[in-house]
Amino acid sequence: MNIANFRHQSDSRYCFSLDASHVLLRLAISKEVSPNFVSVIYGDPMTYSAKHQALAMHKAHEDSGFHYYDVVVEVDPVRLMYIFEIVIGGTSYYLSESGVTDTFPFHTSFINAFQFVGENKNDFVLEPKSWKGRVVYQIFPERFASREDPSSKEYVNESWDKVGVPSGANVFMGGDLYGIIDKLDYLQELGVGVLYLTPIHPSPSNHKYDVLDYFEVDEHFGGKKAFKELVKLAHKKKIKVMMDLVFNHTSDLHPLFQDVVAKGKESPYYDWYFIKDYFPEKKPLNYRCFGYFPGMPKLNTNNRDLQRYLISIGLYWLKEFDVDGFRLDVSEGVSHDFWNRFKIALKDVKSDVLLIGENWFNAESYLGPNQFDGVMNYPFLDAVSAYCLKQDDAKTAVLRLDGLLMRYKAGHNDMMLNILSSHDVQRFRTLCKGDVDLSLLGYALLVFYPGHPMIYYGEEIFMECGRDPDNRRGMAWNSPYWGSPEAETFKKLLHLRKEEAFINGETAIGSCDDMLYVRRLLTESNFTLYCNLSVEAKTIPEKIIFGNKCHNNTLEPGGFAVCKD
Amino acid sequence: MNIANFRHQSDSRYCFSLDASHVLLRLAISKEVSPNFVSVIYGDPMTYSAKHQALAMHKAHEDSGFHYYDVVVEVDPVRLMYIFEIVIGGTSYYLSESGVTDTFPFHTSFINAFQFVGENKNDFVLEPKSWKGRVVYQIFPERFASREDPSSKEYVNESWDKVGVPSGANVFMGGDLYGIIDKLDYLQELGVGVLYLTPIHPSPSNHKYDVLDYFEVDEHFGGKKAFKELVKLAHKKKIKVMMDLVFNHTSDLHPLFQDVVAKGKESPYYDWYFIKDYFPEKKPLNYRCFGYFPGMPKLNTNNRDLQRYLISIGLYWLKEFDVDGFRLDVSEGVSHDFWNRFKIALKDVKSDVLLIGENWFNAESYLGPNQFDGVMNYPFLDAVSAYCLKQDDAKTAVLRLDGLLMRYKAGHNDMMLNILSSHDVQRFRTLCKGDVDLSLLGYALLVFYPGHPMIYYGEEIFMECGRDPDNRRGMAWNSPYWGSPEAETFKKLLHLRKEEAFINGETAIGSCDDMLYVRRLLTESNFTLYCNLSVEAKTIPEKIIFGNKCHNNTLEPGGFAVCKD
Repeated sequence: MNIANFRHQSDSRYCFSLDASHVLLRLAISKEVSPNFVSVIYGDPMTYSAKHQALAMHKAHEDSGFHYYDVVVEVDPVRLMYIFEIVIGGTSYYLSESGVTDTFPFHTSFINAFQFVGENKNDFVLEPKSWKGRVVYQIFPERFASREDPSSKEYVNESWDKVGVPSGANVFMGGDLYGIIDKLDYLQELGVGVLYLTPIHPSPSNHKYDVLDYFEVDEHFGGKKAFKELVKLAHKKKIKVMMDLVFNHTSDLHPLFQDVVAKGKESPYYDWYFIKDYFPEKKPLNYRCFGYFPGMPKLNTNNRDLQRYLISIGLYWLKEFDVDGFRLDVSEGVSHDFWNRFKIALKDVKSDVLLIGENWFNAESYLGPNQFDGVMNYPFLDAVSAYCLKQDDAKTAVLRLDGLLMRYKAGHNDMMLNILSSHDVQRFRTLCKGDVDLSLLGYALLVFYPGHPMIYYGEEIFMECGRDPDNRRGMAWNSPYWGSPEAETFKKLLHLRKEEAFINGETAIGSCDDMLYVRRLLTESNFTLYCNLSVEAKTIPEKIIFGNKCHNNTLEPGGFAVCKD
Repeated sequence: MNIANFRHQSDSRYCFSLDASHVLLRLAISKEVSPNFVSVIYGDPMTYSAKHQALAMHKAHEDSGFHYYDVVVEVDPVRLMYIFEIVIGGTSYYLSESGVTDTFPFHTSFINAFQFVGENKNDFVLEPKSWKGRVVYQIFPERFASREDPSSKEYVNESWDKVGVPSGANVFMGGDLYGIIDKLDYLQELGVGVLYLTPIHPSPSNHKYDVLDYFEVDEHFGGKKAFKELVKLAHKKKIKVMMDLVFNHTSDLHPLFQDVVAKGKESPYYDWYFIKDYFPEKKPLNYRCFGYFPGMPKLNTNNRDLQRYLISIGLYWLKEFDVDGFRLDVSEGVSHDFWNRFKIALKDVKSDVLLIGENWFNAESYLGPNQFDGVMNYPFLDAVSAYCLKQDDAKTAVLRLDGLLMRYKAGHNDMMLNILSSHDVQRFRTLCKGDVDLSLLGYALLVFYPGHPMIYYGEEIFMECGRDPDNRRGMAWNSPYWGSPEAETFKKLLHLRKEEAFINGETAIGSCDDMLYVRRLLTESNFTLYCNLSVEAKTIPEKIIFGNKCHNNTLEPGGFAVCKD
């Protein structure tokens, strides 16, 4: 038997505590193999060689290469020794730390069986209660709203309604935090539970990812006074606020870097950056940067003093402004060691603070103990686009969407920021070639998928864009889509996330009759989403409560239906 | 193509920085597949879709199921985007985050390629220089040596030379720390670089794993005065000292638990343990323990105050006694969250402090950022025994020994505590059915294998034992093996670890002509160990510098030869 056909590791995404007395065990089995029966043989580590019991495992998930067999074992406290039995064509194989064998010598189990001690609650990966059921709304503050007429602001050099936003980071339209405050009622009504603001620190640019002062709020945005008011009022409306922290690099104009520019190696901050020679030089570039942008010198987060400084920034905004979480820019450029220290320091002040890494790729190594809670889920966007653009049929879409859930522990999946648009990619409607119906279908998937749906400002009115940076247009407060049936449907989708089945239910993703479906299951309340991207109308076997391109029990091509039973 | 045949993950044991400009990439390929050619296609993440280059990978390791193809990529700093190309039967397959595909669309690489940013030195897994080349010697202080005649000590109730040590933790033979001090010259001469002492805190037992006071040293052992002297004198001889910390549980007689016994839920320490009811009760047992031993109540390392208390213990011994490392008992019972905090706090005081977990099983999840540096390597013992007891032939032994190296990043392998005996298992000679020659062959493997060889006191004179606790006999200072050729060979083996090839060399494990070999390779100095457990004498192709059961170029069955070129 080819051992490659089986994948398991204890204390990993294949084996994790669900609470103090339940463990999920997961065995990946290659689709090239068709087992008759799969089970786990488990017991108490102290007595396992003499005493153990079997539990059947069932196919619960799949991706392109594997079926995932799951079982939940109840044991109090969670201390487990176990192996797997896989029956194929009537022959039993045993998977243990020793690989695949025809028999398993239970008297050697102390060395050869899998073991898992998962009884410590600090290690459970569980979304904090206060975050459950929340839709995240991403705001690029320069472009969302302004309390005053933005054109009255001295520094503004572009009109709010400009289509085809010019490139260059020094184009200003005048959005501010007071503008956001004025829209809090609107956001609450839309169904938003978290505001995620891209950076608000003083910075020469409109995006502010090149920070000048981590302890201040840009005056263009209204300064600290406006931010304090925003957080306070948002909290009154039970909306959380998440800041964007840029710890991979600063602006080259940041006083820290300027001190190094002036004093070279004599600067106490010299080792806070990565500089090869005595002084930093732009030509030829002799210091590490974000990418190769000399205006964004990279911070050396291995330096203990810098670590303390950066941690004090997180604590400052937590303690003085009561923010609820942080999105961490270019998080893979910062050391794991630093994130460890950062998370620990912040958790001690606010135990339910959420840390979201930007990581675009597989981020398993960033989701270990005291690293991030979740990451921005760009692979989700990739999977949904492939389906909406009909590169993937329903069956293939299932493999990708279900497969992504197999990358991480379930708790981390619950804390992902799932995105279809952001300030870094094309807007989703544009990706759908302008097709509002198709984008709505994508949003329905976004809402049904485990994790937090993230809405980039303006998605709710189907804003479009040209190439970056045109994805950062001024919010279209005069869009014809306000109050449209599509916008109403969008809102209805968001409000689903307040239903118990979405907060505490299981998720099942599958396909039937060329349709993709996603179910959110809870004992007494189940919701199902059906998506029809085939060329034929389909009959939906359940009661449709709302949707798009559907009527009675018929779902037209390009439409979706939300059912409840 | 069955994707199960390939295993890779970025930022893992399959992908890690060797230094600031070198990354090791490793691709596991099932032995069911025979590629013609394997390569990595890599480049700078900023420009990868347009610009990338290929590097051939070579079979470097194997286990029972996989060949491991390695390549070291040089890139400064370490920021990498990459995919693999595997040519099988003339057809190319591409492995990326999207799985195995027939082509790879480079324009989608930002989502689909593997990525690794490994430029931060705090995340490099490298053994601290000060630890390199060190042999670890484990001492069970109650049984190693006593300065005075132990029989003159009041509490001693068993004779030092007792064979068949009676079970029960209250059998005392009278060893102490002064006895160790008196043997420092001996240990230095033997080639020992680290003393690992099982617990020395006050405790009612002889093993002292049930601690009464973490801030004291047992008076039977000579108290703090003796320990301070021991560390000081050991350091003078360039020997490091490693303590054993028991944070999974205390003695039930520890004042903390006694406070809970007295006050129940009213005790400030109630939540430092796991107690179900108002008061802890032994019958029926209503609190969590080490196993089910009521005398060892389990600590709740999720409690923040207890965490601070335990960290203060580590810091105390580090600051006040200058110890160099800690072996952590029942480490899998303590929360990852705690170990994270503990490691960070200790590293800040002594950057090269080493933390070794007891973990008997696959410990990958305990070797993440700011967890342990290494663990006690019981699976190594299992592999060597199987070979020495002729359950495994040389080829199979290679698969197991080489395979174990594939479990962890190379740096962690260097920091393992490799063991053939310990206070928790049968002594190795006894496991070898009393055969000294066979045990010597095992010790040769121990010395050649990456990681720290750990010698349990008395192994150097081939002490035997009956069943546990007879593996804790008084050190046989009158053994006939003192000065024997076998003991001299043992010592010669240990001194090999001071050679550059053992400190900084590569390791290659293989078999030829029914012999198992292990090479330690450095450009100008290579050592090779040949082990012959076949039934025939073998001719060794290299110059033998020493060994056992070998003469000229002939290696007898049951012997081993150390060669140098």
